[in-house]
Amino acid sequence: MYTLYHHPADPFSRKVRLVLAEKGLEFTTKTEEPWKYRPEFLAMNPAGEVPVLEEPDGHILCGHHPICEYIDEITSRPLFGAYARDKAEVRRLCDWFDDKFFHEVTYYLAGEKIMKRLTGGVPDSDAIRAGKTNLAGHMNYMEWLLKQRNWLAGEAFSMADFAAAAQFSVLDYLGEVPWDKTENGLPAFEETKNWYARVKSRPSFRPVLADRITGVIAAPHYGDLDF
Amino acid sequence: MYTLYHHPADPFSRKVRLVLAEKGLEFTTKTEEPWKYRPEFLAMNPAGEVPVLEEPDGHILCGHHPICEYIDEITSRPLFGAYARDKAEVRRLCDWFDDKFFHEVTYYLAGEKIMKRLTGGVPDSDAIRAGKTNLAGHMNYMEWLLKQRNWLAGEAFSMADFAAAAQFSVLDYLGEVPWDKTENGLPAFEETKNWYARVKSRPSFRPVLADRITGVIAAPHYGDLDF
Repeated sequence: MYTLYHHPADPFSRKVRLVLAEKGLEFTTKTEEPWKYRPEFLAMNPAGEVPVLEEPDGHILCGHHPICEYIDEITSRPLFGAYARDKAEVRRLCDWFDDKFFHEVTYYLAGEKIMKRLTGGVPDSDAIRAGKTNLAGHMNYMEWLLKQRNWLAGEAFSMADFAAAAQFSVLDYLGEVPWDKTENGLPAFEETKNWYARVKSRPSFRPVLADRITGVIAAPHYGDLDF
Repeated sequence: MYTLYHHPADPFSRKVRLVLAEKGLEFTTKTEEPWKYRPEFLAMNPAGEVPVLEEPDGHILCGHHPICEYIDEITSRPLFGAYARDKAEVRRLCDWFDDKFFHEVTYYLAGEKIMKRLTGGVPDSDAIRAGKTNLAGHMNYMEWLLKQRNWLAGEAFSMADFAAAAQFSVLDYLGEVPWDKTENGLPAFEETKNWYARVKSRPSFRPVLADRITGVIAAPHYGDLDF
């Protein structure tokens, strides 16, 4: 049995939970509040960040990126792609969502609306506005990609889809993703909406849709497969 | 022949140059100034960032992390480690230096002292002070690691050493690394100094030590193997 130290509001913990579930590995979760700097947790991960994975023999793995690559390596049906060029494209888009999207969108929106609430700060409306603007820019790029491809990194479902969906799931919990229909009766970001509906319907996504973050109310449609 | 679009002041471009040279792949470099948003460059990498690698057949790869993993996969003598747990430790430390160290140290010091000069901004002394303080904290962690290990991620030289050395090489260009001896006649960060001397002496490091950034003078000891 694996043990995952995580936080339900953390998109990177969500990504690891999705991968563990997708790969059929049994695991329990322990909620960690990294901003409390618990000494036993810092001894496991000197970076002081979730997620941390404890393997059945007690071996400790730190960091969402090394953990996801590790799980992919020790199991079958690779999520990072089968060939070196496919992998480069999957990893390019993982970095896009883990780094660029996170810093330009999730960090602003979830940072202001969740983390400030949990740690006792005051949300900054300029940061929230910047996050919303950047989200629309990223969704335009996703529309462009998804018009040419079945999934974000190509024809096959990959780690890039989990990386993106983990970020989206936190924003969607807050009701911050613009899924609304426009005047023509279609969603403004139709390809992205269809893509997220397909990711949401995977069995591995169910526990994430059941998440509730203490003190932060989920948007009404958050758990719906038809939204 | 590979073509690398890079910038000499960018630590991530340096990391890719080190890996290409270490693996013996022939490449030419083209200097890109990403802050100019050249349309042909944006068409290659929609993130607008260096490094970008063009393969001999014209195939384009974007992003330091996917490029390094890719080069490691298509060549022999893996820099990411031979076994899954070794890889997880190498990748943990690559992320440490690529993300954490970069944002806490290099971004402040090189951002204020190089990028602001190249792009016409005014250096912020608070940011420079924060970078110096954070650098000492990181070097304490490196001392602790290197007392237990031959190289940063274990007994074998790995991508983690290149990730760290690429950041250090930019800071050392600026004379910002505290190599000085203390009252006891030994360097304050003796293990880290010995480690950097060993990395510097690799043939693959020579072109980086020959780098000169237009408009920014290199520290006198920058190219010395004995510093």
